[in-house]
Amino acid sequence: MSAIDIQISEVGPRDGLQNTRIFMPTDAKKAWIAALAAAGLPEIEVCSFVNPKMIAQFADAVEVAAYSLTLPDVSIVALVPNLKGAERAVEVGVRRISLPISASEAHSRSNVRKSVDEQLDELARIVALRNSLPTDRRFQITAGISTAFGCTLQGEVPEADVLRIAARAVEIDADSVSVADTVGYANPAQVRRLLSAVRAEIGGRLEAAHFHNTRGLGLANCVAAIEAGVRSLDSSMAGLGGCPYAPGASGNVITEDLVFMLESMGLRTGVDIAKLLDARKILEAALPGADFYGHLAKAGVPKGFARAEAA
Amino acid sequence: MSAIDIQISEVGPRDGLQNTRIFMPTDAKKAWIAALAAAGLPEIEVCSFVNPKMIAQFADAVEVAAYSLTLPDVSIVALVPNLKGAERAVEVGVRRISLPISASEAHSRSNVRKSVDEQLDELARIVALRNSLPTDRRFQITAGISTAFGCTLQGEVPEADVLRIAARAVEIDADSVSVADTVGYANPAQVRRLLSAVRAEIGGRLEAAHFHNTRGLGLANCVAAIEAGVRSLDSSMAGLGGCPYAPGASGNVITEDLVFMLESMGLRTGVDIAKLLDARKILEAALPGADFYGHLAKAGVPKGFARAEAA
Repeated sequence: MSAIDIQISEVGPRDGLQNTRIFMPTDAKKAWIAALAAAGLPEIEVCSFVNPKMIAQFADAVEVAAYSLTLPDVSIVALVPNLKGAERAVEVGVRRISLPISASEAHSRSNVRKSVDEQLDELARIVALRNSLPTDRRFQITAGISTAFGCTLQGEVPEADVLRIAARAVEIDADSVSVADTVGYANPAQVRRLLSAVRAEIGGRLEAAHFHNTRGLGLANCVAAIEAGVRSLDSSMAGLGGCPYAPGASGNVITEDLVFMLESMGLRTGVDIAKLLDARKILEAALPGADFYGHLAKAGVPKGFARAEAA
Repeated sequence: MSAIDIQISEVGPRDGLQNTRIFMPTDAKKAWIAALAAAGLPEIEVCSFVNPKMIAQFADAVEVAAYSLTLPDVSIVALVPNLKGAERAVEVGVRRISLPISASEAHSRSNVRKSVDEQLDELARIVALRNSLPTDRRFQITAGISTAFGCTLQGEVPEADVLRIAARAVEIDADSVSVADTVGYANPAQVRRLLSAVRAEIGGRLEAAHFHNTRGLGLANCVAAIEAGVRSLDSSMAGLGGCPYAPGASGNVITEDLVFMLESMGLRTGVDIAKLLDARKILEAALPGADFYGHLAKAGVPKGFARAEAA
């Protein structure tokens, strides 16, 4: 496998399906995830270990995660809302979990029914769980700072709040920090400013950024994040997700378009665009009636397009 | 009127309608252009003085241009394919024309039935027309270098070809140069590289950039152009246009999304978003069945959004 310049972390099976009304059959999820891995995506967030009573889509989280872990050459991530979710994930053998920590108090209470500081305490409990395991069973913990660029409930989110959470997460000893524009409020100038500030605060522990395309700025924000030194970007096949508060507005950054943009820019992603479009067909067949976005799937690559090559 | 940081040149009535099958009634065009001007757009490209036998949409170019010139506080531009078009535009009183010059030989022959050098000769004839007029009737000439980032017919377009045309256009004494990604091939790294090179070649005569959103990279390319020093960007309301070679793929950069992005970044455009969305309603009513794009029109502005303010 060739080296990559930017890691794309596919979050469609988690963030995308979380916001899709239709239950995707477990076998279709497996086939889709296998196709995503076969296309060369180096990391896939495959499910959420949330209480299935809250989100029925993830009733099959254990089966999906267990299957995904059998796939070669791909890092499997699970989202967990709390310690209990982390315990379930670890039991299945997941080696990388993501814990959302809202920068907005209002969003934190709405999303995980805890204050921001209570959720930081939950992070500490998950770190303790990690540290209690024998070295060969330890998992990586990403603290995902959500609503970092603004919140539909609270409105503006002070940058100082994001910096404080990032610093605390590192102090608690999360392995890495991701900064997320959960509701599609970010703009490129803000992305460069905030991510540079976070980087100044926690250095290389700032690993990833997560943007939504609610207002069409997703790819521009990805470029800004790269300029700020981020080397891992979340995206979702077909932009799957959509924000329930903005019907018709696409959700996550669209994986296909992101891969095309980065490869065009000479940044290697390790992803094969033709195989990626094959994976999209599996998704479309499995979720009839869902909203699928993406320009590349319609327009194709330009004449003479070549993937980024090793220098 | 407050100062602006980035000028948005609305090209929907020209580039958008040129690629729309439905004829927009003349009165609707006037009402739409008036609404665009009322929203604060500082420049509008209102028509093409092309042979109406070639593009029926512009059979009413004289009437539309004459009406547009009565609107206050807005610069009116017309596209002309050749000297004859320039003569017609000048007769109506248009003070700013745009002449396309393809960087791709294949596209040049297909678009204006001339070689690149023959079209540069046409520019020289239009410059002579301008210089023959009394000072108070002279018009501004923009040389619009099309297919500058690649071509659906030719494939790759060497940067040296773009630089040569830019230098020649300035030598011939065009007032300004615009660089266009006619078919949606550009990526942000290429935009920064090429526009910086053009700027090094012709300095401040590089005025504008024109991007299509065929592969979803329109806004990211706009940010890259600004980083390269460009201060005027073309866009089209609702992304109107669409490329006939890529059905379903949106055409020009979407004006509403561009205004939102720039204002969010603290860059003043002079455009009122609410009035812009009013203008969109006029467009939608006048072209039933056409493809309308845009995230902002669906998602609205974020909670607490404020326009960029004078520093």
